[in-house]
This record gives sequence, C-alpha cells and structure tokens, in this order.
Amino acid sequence: MDELKNDRYLRALLRQPVDMTPVWMMRQAGRYLPEYQATRAEAGDFMSLCRNADLACEVTLQPLRRFPLDAAILFSDILTIPDAMGLGLYFEQGEGPRFERPLSSFDDITKLPIPDPEQELGYVMNAVRTIRKNLHGEVPLIGFSGSPWTLATYMVEGGSSKSFTKIKKLMYAEPKTLHLLLAKLADSVTLYLNAQIRAGAQAVMIFDTWGGVLTGNDYREFSLAYMHKIIDGLQRENEGRRVPVTLFTKGGGQWLEAMAQTGCDALGLDWSTDIADARRRVGNQVALQGNMDPSLLYAQPQRIEREVAEILAGFGDGDGHVFNLGHGIHQDVPPENAGVLVEAVHRLSRPYHL
Amino acid sequence: MDELKNDRYLRALLRQPVDMTPVWMMRQAGRYLPEYQATRAEAGDFMSLCRNADLACEVTLQPLRRFPLDAAILFSDILTIPDAMGLGLYFEQGEGPRFERPLSSFDDITKLPIPDPEQELGYVMNAVRTIRKNLHGEVPLIGFSGSPWTLATYMVEGGSSKSFTKIKKLMYAEPKTLHLLLAKLADSVTLYLNAQIRAGAQAVMIFDTWGGVLTGNDYREFSLAYMHKIIDGLQRENEGRRVPVTLFTKGGGQWLEAMAQTGCDALGLDWSTDIADARRRVGNQVALQGNMDPSLLYAQPQRIEREVAEILAGFGDGDGHVFNLGHGIHQDVPPENAGVLVEAVHRLSRPYHL
Repeated sequence: MDELKNDRYLRALLRQPVDMTPVWMMRQAGRYLPEYQATRAEAGDFMSLCRNADLACEVTLQPLRRFPLDAAILFSDILTIPDAMGLGLYFEQGEGPRFERPLSSFDDITKLPIPDPEQELGYVMNAVRTIRKNLHGEVPLIGFSGSPWTLATYMVEGGSSKSFTKIKKLMYAEPKTLHLLLAKLADSVTLYLNAQIRAGAQAVMIFDTWGGVLTGNDYREFSLAYMHKIIDGLQRENEGRRVPVTLFTKGGGQWLEAMAQTGCDALGLDWSTDIADARRRVGNQVALQGNMDPSLLYAQPQRIEREVAEILAGFGDGDGHVFNLGHGIHQDVPPENAGVLVEAVHRLSRPYHL
Repeated sequence: MDELKNDRYLRALLRQPVDMTPVWMMRQAGRYLPEYQATRAEAGDFMSLCRNADLACEVTLQPLRRFPLDAAILFSDILTIPDAMGLGLYFEQGEGPRFERPLSSFDDITKLPIPDPEQELGYVMNAVRTIRKNLHGEVPLIGFSGSPWTLATYMVEGGSSKSFTKIKKLMYAEPKTLHLLLAKLADSVTLYLNAQIRAGAQAVMIFDTWGGVLTGNDYREFSLAYMHKIIDGLQRENEGRRVPVTLFTKGGGQWLEAMAQTGCDALGLDWSTDIADARRRVGNQVALQGNMDPSLLYAQPQRIEREVAEILAGFGDGDGHVFNLGHGIHQDVPPENAGVLVEAVHRLSRPYHL
C-alpha cells in the first residue's frame, strides 16, 4: 500500500495536532456532480453502481479531483446489510430506498442470516480494495455502515417513514423481538465494518440516521447500546495505525455525553447542535465532526465563508475538529460552492492550529 | 361566562399547586375518534369544518365527553393566517396542507396584508366564542397559532417540506426579505392571539413545528426572536385571570434555556427531550408541558402506564407540569388507549402533589 500523504483527517479524529482543519462532505460523491450523474447513467441503477467496483471507485474519486478534500468515503449505501440478508433493496424514483420483502413477523427475524461480508457483501469489499488502491495514499478512505436501529427501521417499515409507526409498535409491544433483530444487526455490522477495515478502510463511521426519533431512554436501549456493542467488537488497529470510529446520530444532539461513552473516537454533529456547546460538553473525550447546514451551500460565497468562520470559531483553538456538513450535500447545490467551503475551511482554520 | 370549575391546567402553567397533574393531548379532537370523522364528513373538507363554528365546537368537545381531560383546545389549523393573507390554503388527500399561491418574490411579501382577526379570521373568533359558551366552565379553552417561522416555511415552500430548500435559500440569500415576512407574521399572530383571548381563550400556545430544522443561531434570529416579540405584545390578563402562554418548538430541546427567556409561562417538550433534564435546565423559570411519544398509544395499557409513571417521576415533586404527548396523537391509535393515558396521569400523579 502507498504511504498516506495526507493524514490530517485521521490525526484530527484522534485529537492530534494538524496544520489546518480537515474537511470532507457527507455524500461528497453524489448527484450534485455532473460527472457522478454520467457514471451513474452508465451503471444503470444505484445498486448496480454500488456493485461495480470500478465505477464505485470512479465516483468515490470524482470529488477529490475537484476539491482538496481530506478524506474519501466508500461509495455504497447504508442498507447493504439488509439487502444481503435477503430483503431485496431497490430504489423508487424520487422515493428513497424500499425493500421488496420487509420484515413482518418474529419468524422472519429468527430466519434472517448474518451475512458473510466477503461473500454476500463481497462487492463492497472489492470496492474498498479498488478505491484504496486507486487513492495512491493521497487521503484516507472512510468505510461505513448504518446503525442497527436505522437498518431495523427500514427493514420493518419497508422503506423511509415519517412517523415510524410499525417499528414503534414493535418496540413497545414486542421489545424482545426487536432486540433479537438489533442483536443480529449489530453482529452483522461488526463483521461488515471489520471486513471493510481489513480491505483497507482507514476509519469507519456509523450512521444512525433515525436515532433522533426516539426518546432518550429508548435511544439508549434500542440504538446506542447496539452501536456500543459494535464499537467494542471493532478492530481498532490496522497497518500499524489506529482506525478511528465516528458515531453520528442525526437529531442526537441531546445525547452527546452518552454517545461519547461508547469508546468511539469522534461524534458527528448535525447542524442543530452548537459546536461550541458540544465541545464544552464532550470535547475532552472525543473529536467532533461537523456541522454546517448543507443548505448553506445554496448561499453566496461570502455567506458560506461567514458560516465556516463561525463554526471554526465555535470549536475554537486546538485539535479534534473535522469539518463537515451536518448531513449529506443536497443534489441541487452548485458544485463550485462545495469548493468555496473546502477552501474556506483550510484557509480560515490555520490560525486555530498555530 | 360560567365560572371555571377545573383550573388545574391554568394553575399548573403558572406553577401553582394542583391536586393532580393536568393532562390534555395535542390533536385530541381528531381522526382517531370515529365521532370526529362523522362530523368532518358532515362538514365536507377540513377547512369547512374549521369555518363552521357549531361543528368546530362539536369536535372540540368530543374528546372531553370521552375522557376527563383538563383542557379543551380550539379546533382550527395553524395555517389560518396565511390563508387569510390570500394564499389559498387547501388540503390534498394524505398530502398535508398546500397553498394555491405560495410566495415567490419580495413583491409578493410587501403586498401581503395583515389580516384583521375579527374580519378575515372572524370564523375563528366565532368558533372560540361558541366553544367557550358550550364548555360551561368545565375546563379552560386553549387558543393557538403557528409561529411566524413555521407559517413562513409553508408560505414559501407552498406546503410541507422535507429539506426546506426554498425558505433556506431565502434565509441565506435575502435575509432582509425573510425578516420582512416574519415581522408581518409576528404582527398578524399577535393580533390573532389577542383576538382569541378577547373572544374567550383562557391560555394560548404557539406551535413552532419547524424551528427544529434551523441551526441554533438561525433559530434565535428567525424563529425565537419573533415568538418573543409576539409574547411581548400579548394581553396577559383577561376576566381577572392571567392568560398563560406556552411555547413549543418541535426539535427545540437544545434551546430550552433561550426559549424560557421569552416571557412565556411554559415550554412544550417533544419526546426527544428528557423531562428531568429539562426541569433541571429551566424548571424554576417556566412550567413544562409534555412529553410522551404519541406512538406509545399503540402499546398495551401496562406499557402506557409505565411510560406515564416514568415521565411523572422524571418531572418529580412539585408544581408546573402539564402532561401531554410530545406531538399530535396519531390517527390510528385506539381511542381507549387515550383514556388509559388520561386516567393514569391523574391517578399516578397524586403522590407528587401531596
């Protein structure tokens, strides 16, 4: 493997000194880039793009050719595991992910297999290996998975949801059944992330997109406990380096203290949390990643810069900040505004790292 | 006017002693009740029901006939003001509210009239007077409005939204234009709530359904500041009694301290906030209303009771708690489960008020 040339992202996650704040963007390989749209059209549908290691590699690298980003992230979907369990993931035009065979009974759950990441999810590992090779050590590669709770919501609801009626009915009526599902998912995610690490992912992130729809008690019992279990089972060293783990619960700003106790290295913040408050609350335990509202990329360059400056000032002096958006980049932002963001983070953050 | 027989709700909002914790449910007059569905079918569409004082009164009183609730809430919609401004509110089947003529330019905003609540919104005042009369002093009547920010999101987006692209573009590109709109809405809401109070509303609530999609800074500038301005302009005494004001920002759990500084009497909490934490943070300044996840009404009675007990214990001893759901009751819950909730709150809260 090529030696890593830019390790700013990995160092910041471990709260080690850096020359400037590293930056990447959730969904940086995505529809806002015309070159992504071209590759996706070539692949056919979204899952075909994920399954083709060369094309998945191509779209992973596209944003890095445009912007001096400090990390690449595996191009894949958070729902690969339920798909590998046999639920049949597909995407309706403009509708988000759907499952052909959502879970509807205890029996469905007991029968779910734990996927072998090198078999049913081998296409993901091929993508990781291909991307890692083609990065030539320029920046580190991030692997990821959805959280057990988030995967379970899609598996039970059959797709996206607004009120999460089905899974909450299950949670309140048959908590043991839901725990069985979550335990299987936690085991599957652990195997999956460890396989990504062995295939070359230099950091991993767990996306808990829907943890924020829970009460605090339910979040700890049904989401956080399983992410904690995953972190306990992860291989934390590879190629002689620590493999940092970032935990991101959208809407989880009230639970940062509990999240920081899981043994993760960093917390992802959405934009509803003030990063200065977050640092006061957990800053000495973990690094923080975030947290500009992705809608700011619709604004004029000066407005974007002002927001970058405010977030950098909010985090303040010292190490342990990875700049990012608070959620994925929107598909209709002008790509040049992403460039404004990346340049501004690098330039404006230097004084905080003297 | 009849003398008020049960003032538990008003007393709790003012943190005065009560014999048991008062309880009402957001959207308690709604589709989960077959008698509501019958009256709505009689009225025709949703807005015709709102505009018919006798039928609006009928649905307001329906849940009180079933359950010993401690307050009634005006049956109306949060979007009556933009409708009165000429935007043309309508409801698509299963799609939520839409406007025929959403705002699309600075010119549209400068031309918006400030509705006279006794004219264009006279049907709401008629409903308030009719309900108040027919309540015969059994419980107090709550009036309400959407917050300026929440109204603005619908007016600019044209309806419900997932990513709030249009209003955020406006906010970041033309903040002064948005401030002009919000100032007009704040004036309109102030007039509207004061008219409701004069018509007989004994408490008012401001629903900020979408404040939680903002950053903390933007929330303070574009939502909270205007709610503060409204509260400053409200008539706080009527019929020799204080008229309490409750502020509810869904997803605003991180900003309770700032919300408590607005001069409101109470904060509504959604279920993502731990009520014990909320009380530690603001408990001596304001009362708290909330905050059971409405999905718990899908559960078995014992599970509902357990949750009620936990929320009551979380708030703890003393006064200043109004029990409620953290958001509106879902349309498909069994009505008898709402009865379980109300009975459990009254029974289990007595020991906290000895």
